Amino acid sequence: MRAEIVSIGDELLKGQRVNTNAAFIAAALAGIGVPVGRIISCSDLEQEMVSVLTESLERADIVLVTGGLGPTRDDRTRNAVQELLGRGLELSEEAYLNLANRMKQRGVGLSDSLRDQAMVIEGSHVIANTRGTAAGMIISCGERFDHHYLVLMPGVPSEMQAMMELTVLPYFAAHSTTVICHTPVKTLAIGESTLAAMIVDIEDHLPAGTTLAYLPHAAGVNLMISTIGRNKEEVDRDNRTIVDSIVKRAGKYIFATSDVTLEETIGAMLSAKGLTVAVAESCTGGLVASRLTDVPGSSLYFLQGFVVYSNQAKQKTLGVEKELIERFGAVSDEVARSMAQRCLEKSGADFAVATTGIAGPSGGSTEKPVGMVCLAVATKSSGTVLSKTLFMQGDRERNKFRFSEAALRELWECLRDQQ
Amino acid sequence: MRAEIVSIGDELLKGQRVNTNAAFIAAALAGIGVPVGRIISCSDLEQEMVSVLTESLERADIVLVTGGLGPTRDDRTRNAVQELLGRGLELSEEAYLNLANRMKQRGVGLSDSLRDQAMVIEGSHVIANTRGTAAGMIISCGERFDHHYLVLMPGVPSEMQAMMELTVLPYFAAHSTTVICHTPVKTLAIGESTLAAMIVDIEDHLPAGTTLAYLPHAAGVNLMISTIGRNKEEVDRDNRTIVDSIVKRAGKYIFATSDVTLEETIGAMLSAKGLTVAVAESCTGGLVASRLTDVPGSSLYFLQGFVVYSNQAKQKTLGVEKELIERFGAVSDEVARSMAQRCLEKSGADFAVATTGIAGPSGGSTEKPVGMVCLAVATKSSGTVLSKTLFMQGDRERNKFRFSEAALRELWECLRDQQ
Repeated sequence: MRAEIVSIGDELLKGQRVNTNAAFIAAALAGIGVPVGRIISCSDLEQEMVSVLTESLERADIVLVTGGLGPTRDDRTRNAVQELLGRGLELSEEAYLNLANRMKQRGVGLSDSLRDQAMVIEGSHVIANTRGTAAGMIISCGERFDHHYLVLMPGVPSEMQAMMELTVLPYFAAHSTTVICHTPVKTLAIGESTLAAMIVDIEDHLPAGTTLAYLPHAAGVNLMISTIGRNKEEVDRDNRTIVDSIVKRAGKYIFATSDVTLEETIGAMLSAKGLTVAVAESCTGGLVASRLTDVPGSSLYFLQGFVVYSNQAKQKTLGVEKELIERFGAVSDEVARSMAQRCLEKSGADFAVATTGIAGPSGGSTEKPVGMVCLAVATKSSGTVLSKTLFMQGDRERNKFRFSEAALRELWECLRDQQ
Repeated sequence: MRAEIVSIGDELLKGQRVNTNAAFIAAALAGIGVPVGRIISCSDLEQEMVSVLTESLERADIVLVTGGLGPTRDDRTRNAVQELLGRGLELSEEAYLNLANRMKQRGVGLSDSLRDQAMVIEGSHVIANTRGTAAGMIISCGERFDHHYLVLMPGVPSEMQAMMELTVLPYFAAHSTTVICHTPVKTLAIGESTLAAMIVDIEDHLPAGTTLAYLPHAAGVNLMISTIGRNKEEVDRDNRTIVDSIVKRAGKYIFATSDVTLEETIGAMLSAKGLTVAVAESCTGGLVASRLTDVPGSSLYFLQGFVVYSNQAKQKTLGVEKELIERFGAVSDEVARSMAQRCLEKSGADFAVATTGIAGPSGGSTEKPVGMVCLAVATKSSGTVLSKTLFMQGDRERNKFRFSEAALRELWECLRDQQ
């Protein structure tokens, strides 16, 4: 069973939007053993959609379409499919009730244009939209297309994602005969070529059906170990063997072998030990706190954050000494250490993380260039403060992210070494 | 002149990498008036590449290909193009010298596999690679393909981007006779269908060559007004006319008609008036501060943030009264107002923004469900505190983002109304 993905929307063709939907769908299909042959972005003109969908349905067993389902007139996907298949529309009772319920909750009446959102292609299996109004559809396309499937979903990522997870994946998983196992290996503080050199012989002797990919990202590199086959036990075993041998080799740099973020890993470590954390941020401007509180249940271990952007705030709110800032500068190891120490005292937390640096684009000097960051972690139990100064290269947003990643990494190392 | 983009690589089809290259190329081509008809991702199998390129060259005047140029064995793009066009390879002296120079700088010898990187399709116009080793090519494909162009570039984003900017865009800009003008219209606090109803007659009478697209995002909807034509003055005028009439109709909801973010708009308003802001966040966990400090130069107006996640932090750090929290609950209009007021006093800022709510997935109740947020903005000059309670639907991350968006919106409205 092979799939193709068709992404509808002029904003994609104009480069105004990056096609994250297609990557999400492709990864989700890989998870149920359905390979993707092509991904095509095309305009929302009916004629163009009809010709793209015709070609894709001739090649692939399943064609998943996002975009062009909605209340406005540039939403023409349904029209194109009507023309393509020669079918009419029918009211889906299920979609209509979902719509009526959503509107009731919001205290809004059901206008004609909203009611139209519950009209689906004749003979569709309706995909409930748990996060929006436009109904999705799974359509078996009849003899002309060898009974291949067309899946229509809205382009809004959250709506599409819920549809994939709740309806589309379970629907097609039942049809698939291949088994795929993907395991991410998430690393920190190691470059792609160093990591590659470290595991070169593992990579040279991968079992048949197993591949290893390097996925560099803003703050390092992850690995993806993929194994494909027909027997679930064998596939899982081969995959596990490779993952284990990589962990054995490079475990020091690996924070997870599952699809979790660094902040989730930290959260789990803190929760398991009943410990708490607070942060004092200058250059990261709240991003470290925001990432830590992205994790559900973080209120159990995240006490508070101080975003002390101005020097006055560093002094008045945290109690960093004016003399220290004047002597060493706000971006200095000494000030980072003091911020962490004061944050620990003020918050009563078990750990305090501090950041001070220069995100840019201005504010740098020869001695303290844009991209410089001083980090510190204070630990209550041991009474110690660890600190580090790093230099990064990037624009402001990238620097902010990498500073926050480095700060979380320091915290992760403290937690790991405490075990 | 029309283009298509072909992205080669299994990692795209497996969803392991998002196709940012295609968006970059499409936006760059839009800038020189070359519309993109389709964007296609396909595997690096030679047969598949030949068939995708054949179809694209039949439809489009220029086909831009990224990926599959490089020294490793899965780099098969050149082979596919040799087969497609029936041409051999030749050594490019220009590419060879570039390569030799780069290697000399690094103190590395020229191996055979590196020398192979300077071999190009016969009759190519070579695109110098200023950031890597693989040479790019612009190829006129002969009579069979109506002299359409094939552009081959590596998939490494920085190498491709430099090639586009230094060689490909100047090369094709000279061939283009169309002009395109895009203007984003960025709105707040209005839904897609309400906005559509408000501007229905404008949309009904768009001048020829002008299109209007709705781009929904996590916290609302933006419009994109695009005009295409041959005369720059006419194109700009037609585009401006439509943008102006939309602003006249829906100006209350529009914060920008250029490519700026809400936080940049707020930053410009604060800077222009010499005013400052501070934030006190509970449920948004630092995200409001982080977004405000994403803007270059924000240290001029952003003083500090208090991420008071625990009730104790709200009391101890900000000075919110314990009785208030006990009587009304931490998520309440009263506590949000107190947080904003205390934040204003503690920071000395001109504006203070406060958030308290329930991001989920747990922590909700019938009275105070997940997705509820109380926002407040305190203004020093008038001595007033405005507050609002909203209800959203989404997962934790989406809720956090929408809460932060709503908080920034309240601040934006205060700034707007002060004018």
